[in-house]
Amino acid sequence: MREFSKEEIDSVLDLAQSLEPLARGKKSSMLAGKILALLFFEPSTRTRMSFETAMKRLGGSVINLGPAEGSSISKGESLADTVRVIGGYADALVIRHPKEGSARLASQFSPVPVLNAGDGAGHHPTQTLLDLYTIRKESRLENLHVALVGDLKYGRTVHSLAYALSLYGADITLVSPPTLRMPDPIKADLSSKGTIVRETADLGEVIDNVDVLYMTRIQRERFPDPVEYQKVASSYRITPESLAGSQQNLIIMHPLPRVDEISPSVDDSSHARYFQQSFYGVPVRMALLKMLLEGDQVD
Amino acid sequence: MREFSKEEIDSVLDLAQSLEPLARGKKSSMLAGKILALLFFEPSTRTRMSFETAMKRLGGSVINLGPAEGSSISKGESLADTVRVIGGYADALVIRHPKEGSARLASQFSPVPVLNAGDGAGHHPTQTLLDLYTIRKESRLENLHVALVGDLKYGRTVHSLAYALSLYGADITLVSPPTLRMPDPIKADLSSKGTIVRETADLGEVIDNVDVLYMTRIQRERFPDPVEYQKVASSYRITPESLAGSQQNLIIMHPLPRVDEISPSVDDSSHARYFQQSFYGVPVRMALLKMLLEGDQVD
Amino acid sequence: MREFSKEEIDSVLDLAQSLEPLARGKKSSMLAGKILALLFFEPSTRTRMSFETAMKRLGGSVINLGPAEGSSISKGESLADTVRVIGGYADALVIRHPKEGSARLASQFSPVPVLNAGDGAGHHPTQTLLDLYTIRKESRLENLHVALVGDLKYGRTVHSLAYALSLYGADITLVSPPTLRMPDPIKADLSSKGTIVRETADLGEVIDNVDVLYMTRIQRERFPDPVEYQKVASSYRITPESLAGSQQNLIIMHPLPRVDEISPSVDDSSHARYFQQSFYGVPVRMALLKMLLEGDQVD
Repeated sequence: MREFSKEEIDSVLDLAQSLEPLARGKKSSMLAGKILALLFFEPSTRTRMSFETAMKRLGGSVINLGPAEGSSISKGESLADTVRVIGGYADALVIRHPKEGSARLASQFSPVPVLNAGDGAGHHPTQTLLDLYTIRKESRLENLHVALVGDLKYGRTVHSLAYALSLYGADITLVSPPTLRMPDPIKADLSSKGTIVRETADLGEVIDNVDVLYMTRIQRERFPDPVEYQKVASSYRITPESLAGSQQNLIIMHPLPRVDEISPSVDDSSHARYFQQSFYGVPVRMALLKMLLEGDQVD
Repeated sequence: MREFSKEEIDSVLDLAQSLEPLARGKKSSMLAGKILALLFFEPSTRTRMSFETAMKRLGGSVINLGPAEGSSISKGESLADTVRVIGGYADALVIRHPKEGSARLASQFSPVPVLNAGDGAGHHPTQTLLDLYTIRKESRLENLHVALVGDLKYGRTVHSLAYALSLYGADITLVSPPTLRMPDPIKADLSSKGTIVRETADLGEVIDNVDVLYMTRIQRERFPDPVEYQKVASSYRITPESLAGSQQNLIIMHPLPRVDEISPSVDDSSHARYFQQSFYGVPVRMALLKMLLEGDQVD
Repeated sequence: MREFSKEEIDSVLDLAQSLEPLARGKKSSMLAGKILALLFFEPSTRTRMSFETAMKRLGGSVINLGPAEGSSISKGESLADTVRVIGGYADALVIRHPKEGSARLASQFSPVPVLNAGDGAGHHPTQTLLDLYTIRKESRLENLHVALVGDLKYGRTVHSLAYALSLYGADITLVSPPTLRMPDPIKADLSSKGTIVRETADLGEVIDNVDVLYMTRIQRERFPDPVEYQKVASSYRITPESLAGSQQNLIIMHPLPRVDEISPSVDDSSHARYFQQSFYGVPVRMALLKMLLEGDQVD
């Protein structure tokens, strides 16, 4: 994401906007005859299905490497070889891999374009683009005050999003337990770009002052002590009560799956946008597929 | 199934009849551009492939959640959330779940129509509809004498089928070992609707007098004693010899997979219909998909 | 493969040649509306994806049995029954099975044509056809000197290929460690057909004199002693140095996945053809699908 300019991001979002009716079911054969190969070296049902949907909504086909066990990879094949072989079958590849840098490596060996669907602690650019698309559609991208909440240390989603938001001049408040704070180099980087970054452990003090509340999952495994986990988890949980003083136009986002971070009783409130956010992954990925496979920038 | 009227069932079967040529390979693009999502929370290869075939024969596309391990569900996501997310990608969902009531729950949260492909001991309505379609095509639905044979206690297939047959005035003979009898409430229910229900443990005494022999699998796990299982299994096995005195028009059905209930030497007899029955799942599911996705009742 | 005549092979290769533009992405709806079912009873990601690609490049659809665990097969269903059921859904089946003779058995019970994608130590005819196609495209099929290298005992690929090459009058040099020699009956068979067959354990002495170097993987499991394996593996490894005296037109093939048999530094040499070979599986399988599903011989 750090390599995208604001203009490039805007052109993807504009194209996604124009494709949204197709994402909602309007028939298209734009990519008929094209094949997208999915190489998910770690499971991610949601991202995989979102890409599949995007490709099929555009009339294209999908082939799927499937789980790595029992495949050529388990016989010791290198990623470079796998990518060259599957790249011989398909018109583009989507890769998700537990190791940072895998997508870049794949793109060096693939005969066809490669889309990064997340590689380790590294990048997950399509998630960031759909987050931006959601904010643009459901709130506004300019002059925004965003709170990023939860696990800001390991959650790669929030790192990429913070960088992208800084392009649009957002004020950012980081809300996390002390042990899960956003890494200092990222904070320094954001500040050096002129972004106002605040930091707190108290969700209650920021909830009434923000336009976007971006929740993330806090994983039980991060805490050696289950009692400590329970304490943190309950203090970072959104309920109708905790929203009582919030701005009328506040939107709540979450990359999903959620566990306990947002009470189901918030789902029907005027603030909830996480299911729309999930859907918006489809037009955003359609835009990327169309750009890669048709060489278009904007429709 | 208990909520369908005879007229509703007939309209599904009529539509299936009109779609059968497409199920046999006649090209169609009736549902081109539509996406069906499969959510199978327990494996059922046969039902899954039948739905996939039905959708693809109509020109539509399929996305598949795949096995639950490693997916968002394993991260603790609720069924309601999964259904809302996947429902954002697809035009309809097919759900199979080990817990009774799951399909109903899913339909409350899904933004798109939900088809129940079996939920626990509850319902498996598409199996019942294809059973009825088979009987209508290969025998007749009115004034029928049907024997339901095997595990009538746990086999949900036969419960739903018994209710449906009662709508058409069938006489039903229940043939099972004493420990696997059909539950009393279901028998009482059938009788209260005027259906003649007989019960016996002796397959030999009914085989010559019925129009339809509906076999089911008796699972080894139901018997604590392997010797007892062997005794029962061999007495509920159909062979050419056991069919010697049967009616000329007798048809034999089985929801498959079979293990030992029907000897392979019966496969070439004029009575065997279980492979046709399996195929008829395709036009029946096509009818349901067309009704859901095009809002049609009958073509 | 032993049942194919040279003329039949040529007609498949000719048809594959005419379909190659479609394999490279030219849009086609030749098999629109047709369904191919994949029954892979042992994993083979590469072969499965190649067939999927072939079918989708021709505009057809694919349904996949998926892994056998949890399916009807794990409930004790016979291969005959599985094939009859899935054959009721699809227009053709592709089967891969660990047991020799399974494809033939399947074809006896299937209502639709069956393609063998490898059955145990038996046959893997589509691999042989794509090997021949590669040789014809990248070298020449007539008057050829081919070295088959590596595990010639268990590698079924090389057995079928040796037979097929004998039809085209090739001289064959077998290069393997003593414990992995090609079985005597196959060698006798080849010789009886007039094929010149040489045998050696020394790769270095043949490398400069052949037109085609067909490498195969030597599996660690074949050697009780890891030191012995390392010795053999390193002496059957192709590097730029080992190719220093080779013919200018030498081509190097490998059925992939490779592990250490060919150094990655050979990939960019003028001799490497293994990735093209992998791609050629697509047009060859397209030709077979078209012949089966349209009844064509040559376009």
